[in-house]
Amino acid sequence: MRILVVNVNTTQAITDSIGRQAAAVAAPDTEIVPVTPPFGAESVEGYYESHLAAVAVLEAVRTHAEPFDAVIQAGYGEHGREALQELVEVPVVDITEASASTAQFLGRSYSVVTSLDRTVPLIEDRLATAGLTARCASVRASGLAVLDLDRDPDAAVEAIAEQALRAVREDHAEVICLGCGGMAGLADRVLERTGAPVVDGVTAAVTTAESLVRLGLRTSKVRSYAPVRPKRFTNWPPRAG
Amino acid sequence: MRILVVNVNTTQAITDSIGRQAAAVAAPDTEIVPVTPPFGAESVEGYYESHLAAVAVLEAVRTHAEPFDAVIQAGYGEHGREALQELVEVPVVDITEASASTAQFLGRSYSVVTSLDRTVPLIEDRLATAGLTARCASVRASGLAVLDLDRDPDAAVEAIAEQALRAVREDHAEVICLGCGGMAGLADRVLERTGAPVVDGVTAAVTTAESLVRLGLRTSKVRSYAPVRPKRFTNWPPRAG
Amino acid sequence: MRILVVNVNTTQAITDSIGRQAAAVAAPDTEIVPVTPPFGAESVEGYYESHLAAVAVLEAVRTHAEPFDAVIQAGYGEHGREALQELVEVPVVDITEASASTAQFLGRSYSVVTSLDRTVPLIEDRLATAGLTARCASVRASGLAVLDLDRDPDAAVEAIAEQALRAVREDHAEVICLGCGGMAGLADRVLERTGAPVVDGVTAAVTTAESLVRLGLRTSKVRSYAPVRPKRFTNWPPRAG
Amino acid sequence: MRILVVNVNTTQAITDSIGRQAAAVAAPDTEIVPVTPPFGAESVEGYYESHLAAVAVLEAVRTHAEPFDAVIQAGYGEHGREALQELVEVPVVDITEASASTAQFLGRSYSVVTSLDRTVPLIEDRLATAGLTARCASVRASGLAVLDLDRDPDAAVEAIAEQALRAVREDHAEVICLGCGGMAGLADRVLERTGAPVVDGVTAAVTTAESLVRLGLRTSKVRSYAPVRPKRFTNWPPRAG
Amino acid sequence: MRILVVNVNTTQAITDSIGRQAAAVAAPDTEIVPVTPPFGAESVEGYYESHLAAVAVLEAVRTHAEPFDAVIQAGYGEHGREALQELVEVPVVDITEASASTAQFLGRSYSVVTSLDRTVPLIEDRLATAGLTARCASVRASGLAVLDLDRDPDAAVEAIAEQALRAVREDHAEVICLGCGGMAGLADRVLERTGAPVVDGVTAAVTTAESLVRLGLRTSKVRSYAPVRPKRFTNWPPRAG
Amino acid sequence: MRILVVNVNTTQAITDSIGRQAAAVAAPDTEIVPVTPPFGAESVEGYYESHLAAVAVLEAVRTHAEPFDAVIQAGYGEHGREALQELVEVPVVDITEASASTAQFLGRSYSVVTSLDRTVPLIEDRLATAGLTARCASVRASGLAVLDLDRDPDAAVEAIAEQALRAVREDHAEVICLGCGGMAGLADRVLERTGAPVVDGVTAAVTTAESLVRLGLRTSKVRSYAPVRPKRFTNWPPRAG
Repeated sequence: MRILVVNVNTTQAITDSIGRQAAAVAAPDTEIVPVTPPFGAESVEGYYESHLAAVAVLEAVRTHAEPFDAVIQAGYGEHGREALQELVEVPVVDITEASASTAQFLGRSYSVVTSLDRTVPLIEDRLATAGLTARCASVRASGLAVLDLDRDPDAAVEAIAEQALRAVREDHAEVICLGCGGMAGLADRVLERTGAPVVDGVTAAVTTAESLVRLGLRTSKVRSYAPVRPKRFTNWPPRAG
Repeated sequence: MRILVVNVNTTQAITDSIGRQAAAVAAPDTEIVPVTPPFGAESVEGYYESHLAAVAVLEAVRTHAEPFDAVIQAGYGEHGREALQELVEVPVVDITEASASTAQFLGRSYSVVTSLDRTVPLIEDRLATAGLTARCASVRASGLAVLDLDRDPDAAVEAIAEQALRAVREDHAEVICLGCGGMAGLADRVLERTGAPVVDGVTAAVTTAESLVRLGLRTSKVRSYAPVRPKRFTNWPPRAG
Repeated sequence: MRILVVNVNTTQAITDSIGRQAAAVAAPDTEIVPVTPPFGAESVEGYYESHLAAVAVLEAVRTHAEPFDAVIQAGYGEHGREALQELVEVPVVDITEASASTAQFLGRSYSVVTSLDRTVPLIEDRLATAGLTARCASVRASGLAVLDLDRDPDAAVEAIAEQALRAVREDHAEVICLGCGGMAGLADRVLERTGAPVVDGVTAAVTTAESLVRLGLRTSKVRSYAPVRPKRFTNWPPRAG
Repeated sequence: MRILVVNVNTTQAITDSIGRQAAAVAAPDTEIVPVTPPFGAESVEGYYESHLAAVAVLEAVRTHAEPFDAVIQAGYGEHGREALQELVEVPVVDITEASASTAQFLGRSYSVVTSLDRTVPLIEDRLATAGLTARCASVRASGLAVLDLDRDPDAAVEAIAEQALRAVREDHAEVICLGCGGMAGLADRVLERTGAPVVDGVTAAVTTAESLVRLGLRTSKVRSYAPVRPKRFTNWPPRAG
Repeated sequence: MRILVVNVNTTQAITDSIGRQAAAVAAPDTEIVPVTPPFGAESVEGYYESHLAAVAVLEAVRTHAEPFDAVIQAGYGEHGREALQELVEVPVVDITEASASTAQFLGRSYSVVTSLDRTVPLIEDRLATAGLTARCASVRASGLAVLDLDRDPDAAVEAIAEQALRAVREDHAEVICLGCGGMAGLADRVLERTGAPVVDGVTAAVTTAESLVRLGLRTSKVRSYAPVRPKRFTNWPPRAG
Repeated sequence: MRILVVNVNTTQAITDSIGRQAAAVAAPDTEIVPVTPPFGAESVEGYYESHLAAVAVLEAVRTHAEPFDAVIQAGYGEHGREALQELVEVPVVDITEASASTAQFLGRSYSVVTSLDRTVPLIEDRLATAGLTARCASVRASGLAVLDLDRDPDAAVEAIAEQALRAVREDHAEVICLGCGGMAGLADRVLERTGAPVVDGVTAAVTTAESLVRLGLRTSKVRSYAPVRPKRFTNWPPRAG
C-alpha cells in the first residue's frame, strides 16, 4: 500500500526526517510518500500557521498525482483533518490522534509533551474535538521552538524528559506522547528517564493507517465527511507563487 | 468606531445583506465595513470550504488598509476565529459565539437552527471549542442550502420555523439562534411561530463588538493568542488569481 | 433606555459606587437607576445572606414604581437571577454571568478573583448553573472581606493582583474577571501586573443589557421563566421594618 | 432524636401529610416535628416561590425554640439547603437529594417524575448543584399542579405512572423518584405499573437523616458552610404580617 | 434484620474488625453477619486481587445458607457490586459508594484517603461508575499497605491525617472518606487534625443498608440487574481447595 | 509474533470462530492462538458471567505455557482488562476498546450494536472506563442472545442492521461497531444497509495488537498496572472441577 505522509511545515528537512521515521516502522509492502506542503510557514507554532497549513495540506493531497491508500497529517495539534476526510475516501490519520489512541492502550492516562507553551491550546483543542481528552492527564510544553530541537539535541532531550517526568509524578500520566517531531532516540531517552512507555506520533500513525487499510475500512461519508458539494470557487486554487 | 464584518462566502450579495443587517443595529457612531474574502467558495457548507474561508478571512483582515476597532467573522460554525485573535489586538467576534452568548441571557437553554445537516457538526465543534455547549439544547438543520434561502423565502421560513418549534417542544430550547444568514423578517416569523426569542448572529455580534470596544477591552495576548512569531513563509500570500 | 442596577448589599455607599461605575460606561441615552435592597445584610458573603438578598432584590424590582428596560443584579455569585426572569419580561443580567460571557470573547480561558474564600463556592455554583464553567480556569479568593476593600485600597489591589497573577501563571487564565465590586482603578492596576485583560462585572453588565435592549430581545417565557402562577401568598410581602 | 421536617409550602394540610409520611418510617425513638414556613406561597412551583420558601424555611429553623438533631427541607427542587447548612451544625437533608442518593443504590439510573413542567429546571438545577446528575436518566413532568394532586387522586396516579413508564422504557431509568409530595399509596401503584422501585423523598430523607445522626456526623464547617459572619442586617427579620 | 457484611480480603482478622465496626453502629434489631470470602488474596490492593475478590464475594453470597435482608461489600474501590445486584433482590451496598453518598450530605465536596497509590485508580473507577465523582475533590494515598496499618497505628494515623489535611487545604475537600478499613479511633483523630467530618465506609454502609430495608426498597430488576439468565456453566463453582 | 486471543465464553465453537476471524486479518508472520477460558458461562451476557470470565481469562493467561507478544480479550463490554495489564508486560487489547478506537478514525461518532439490551450497560461502563464515550453516539441492542446469532443468521443480520440504521438516522452515528462476535459476512451486510463503515472488534483488535508490538510498546508499569504485589492467596487457583 502507499501512504502519503504530509508535513505541515514547509521545511524540507522536517519532511525528510518524518519520512525516515515513517519508513522505519512501515510494513515491507508499504510505500511511504513524504510530502511537503506547497505553501505556508517553515514551522507551525500557532493558530495562524496552523490554518495556513490546513489549506496547504489539503491542496497537496487534492493535487497529488498518484493514487494512495491512506493519508497521514504529520503535525501535532493542527487543523484540517476533517476537511481531508471530506476530500478523500481513504483513511486519514492525524498524528496527534494516533498517538493518543495508541497511548490509551498502554496505560490508564497519558500526557503530551510538546514544544512551545503557545501550542498547548491547539493540542488540547484537537484532542477535545477528537474525543480523546478523558484519559489525557496533561499537555505540557518543554519551551523549545520546533526549529530549536535540532540545534542542541541534548538540551532538547533534557527539557522534554523533565516535563515527561513531571507529567508522570504530578499529573499521574502513565504514558508519554511526544508532541513534537523528529529527534532520533528521543523516545528511548524519555523512557529511560520516566519508566513510562513513549509514543511517537508519526510511527503510531503509520501502523494505525496500515491497520485501517488492511481491515478494508474507509472514511464514513454518511454525514460530516460527505463529499464536498459542487460549487463555484473564486481565486482558488492560488497560482504558484 | 469602525467594525470590519467579514463574510466567509465569496458571494457579494451575501456580503451586502450582512452589511445591511449589521448597519441596522449599529450605534450611530459605528461604521460597519462589510468585507468579501479574496478567495474561497461561493457558499461555505462543510469543512473544506470552512478551512479555505478561515485563511481567506485572515488574509482580508491582515491586508485591510485602514484601521479598525473590532472584527466580526460572519460565518456560522466556521474556523479561524482564534487565528484572527493572534493577528490583531482589537476584539474579534464570531457570530456563532455571539448569538449563543446572547441567547444564554434570555433563557435557560438555546437551540441553533441552521441550513444543511452536514453543517451541524461544524457548529457543534465551534460551540464546544468556545465552551458554549452546556446550555445548548440542540443544533438542528432545516435542510436548505445557503444559496437556496433566497430562492423561496416562504418555504425557507417554513422549514426553519418547523425545526425551531421542534427545538422548543422536543429539546426544551427556550431561545432560538438562527444559524444561517440574512433573511429579512426571518427572526420575527420564527418568534411568532414558537413564542421563543430569536437571536440573529450578525446583529448580536455587532452589539457585542461595540460593547467590548466601549469597555476598552482587547484580545488577551498572554498565551493562546500571542502575536505570530516571526518566521519565514513559503509561497504565501498567494498572488492574486 | 432605563436600567435598574440593583445592589445585593444594603450598604448605600456600595450602591452609590456601583451606580457611578455603571453610569461611566452607559450610552448617552441610557439612564442608570441604582437601587438598594429594602432589607438584608450590609455585605453579602455567604449562602444565608445571598438568599436574603435574592428575595430583597425581587421585592425591590417587583415594587419599583417606574417602568424600566432591563435589570442588572449587581452581586457576584448570588442567587435569584432566574426568579427575576420570571417576574419581568425585560432582560435580566447578572454581573457574574456578564463578566464571564464578556471574558470568553477575549481569551481562551478566564479566572475570577473574588473577596473571601467562602464565596468561591457560590461563584462556582452560579457559573455552573449558567453554563459558563467550560472556559473557567479558576475562581480565586484574595482573602479580603467586602467591607475591607475600601479601608486599605493599596493592600486590596496588591492582594487581588497577586491572585490574578497566579491565575495567569498557574491556572493558564488569559482574562481576569473581578469578582468584587467597586474600587476605582482596580482593573487598570491588575492589567498592569498581569498583562491580561480585566473585566469588571458591573460595566460588562451595563453594555450587555444595553445590547439586549437594542436588539429588541426579551426574556423567554416558554418554560423556565414563565410568569409566576396566580396563587395565595401568606404573610408576604413583609411590612416595612 | 428530634428531626425538623420543614415544608416549603404554607399550606398546613401539606405539612400534616408530610409529617405523617415521615413519622411512618421514623425509628421508634425519633420524634418528627413538622414545620410550616412563616410566610410564602401556598404551593411552590417556580423560582420566585422557591426563593421565598428558602428564606422562610431559614427563618423557621433559625427561630425554632427547641433543640433538634437534624433538619429536612421537604420541597422537591427548591433553594436554600446550603444556607441551612451555614445556619446549623446538625445534618441538613434535602428531599430531592435524599431520594436521588437512595435511588442510586437500587439501580443503574433513576428518573424523577414531578408535577408541572416548569419545575423540571429547578429539580435539574438542584441535582446538578448536588453532584447527582451522572446517573439521572431524566426529570419528567406529569403536568399536574401541586394542589391538584389531591383533587383527583386516580387521575394523578395515572398521569404520574404514565411518565414513570416512559422513563423506564424510553430513558432507561431503573428507579423512579417521586418528585412531588404526599399521596398515600402513590409509590405502590407506580411500582405496580413499572416494575421499578419507587423512592419517596420524604421517607428517604428521614432514614438518611437518622443515619447521619446515628453515625455522629455533622455539617462540615471548614469552608462553604462556615457559620455566618457577624454583620449588620437591615429590616430583617420581618415583623409578623 | 440480618445484613451480610462481606470482606474482600481473606484475612480473618480484617473480617473480625469489620464485623465489630458494623455491629457498633447497627440498630438493636439488626444482626450483622461478617463473612470472609472462600478464596482470594490476604489483602486486595490492585486489579488482579480485586477481580478475584469480586468472584469470591459472589460465591460467598450465592452459597450463604441463611436468608438475609441486605449485603454490604466491604472493600474500598473493588469490583463486583453490580453482579451481586444481579444475584440477589435485597439491597446491595458498596462501602466506597456508601461513604461518598454520605459525605455528600455533609459538605460541598469530599476526598478519599486510601492506602497505596496503586489503589487510587480503582477507587476513581468505582466512584465514576457509580456516578459519584462530581463532588469528589480528590483521592489521595497515604502510602501504607493494608496489612501495615496495624503494625504501627500511630504512624498510620499520621500518614492518613497528613493526606486528609492536604485534601482540605489544597483540594478544597470539606469531608474526608476513609478509604481503608478498620483502625479504631482513626476517624476521631483525622477529624481532630482537619476539622472536617470523617466518614467511615463500613459504618456508613450499615446505616445505608438499614435505611433501604426499612423503606422496603429492593434492587431494581428492570434492566441492568435482571436475574442471571439460565445457562450452562463449565467447571464452576470450583471445588473447595 | 504470537497473539493470544482469549474468548470470554466457554463455548468452543465461539473460540474457533473468533480464531478464524483473527487469523483472516493477521499479518503473515503473526500466529493467532485462540484460547477458551478454563471455567465460566457458555455465553457471557451480564455482570455475573462477566466477572467469572474476567477471572477465567486471567487464569488462562497466567498459566499459558508458551511465550506470547500480546493478549486480546475477545469479549464485548467485559471486565478484567486492567487486571490482565497488571499480570503481563506485553500489550493487552480489549475488543470493545479496539473497535471504538478504530471507529473514531473513520467518522465523527460511532454507535455499537450489540446482542441483548441487558449487556448495553456493561458496554457503556467499559467505554466510559476507557475514556471512549465522547464520540459514542449510542449503544443499541438487537435483542438477540449470543447463542441465537447462529440459529437464524438472516434474522440476526436483519435485527442488527435495523438497529444500525436507526443509529445512523436517529443518533447521528457515522460508523457502526459490531458488539457481538462472529457472524461471517455480517459487517458487509450492515455496511450495505447503512452506508456507514462497520468495525468488527476481533479484527480491529488484531491489527491494533500487531501495531503495538511492531512499535515496540509495552504496558505501562508506573502506576495502575504495576506488577501484582507478592502476597498470600487462599484456595486459589482452584483445582480443576
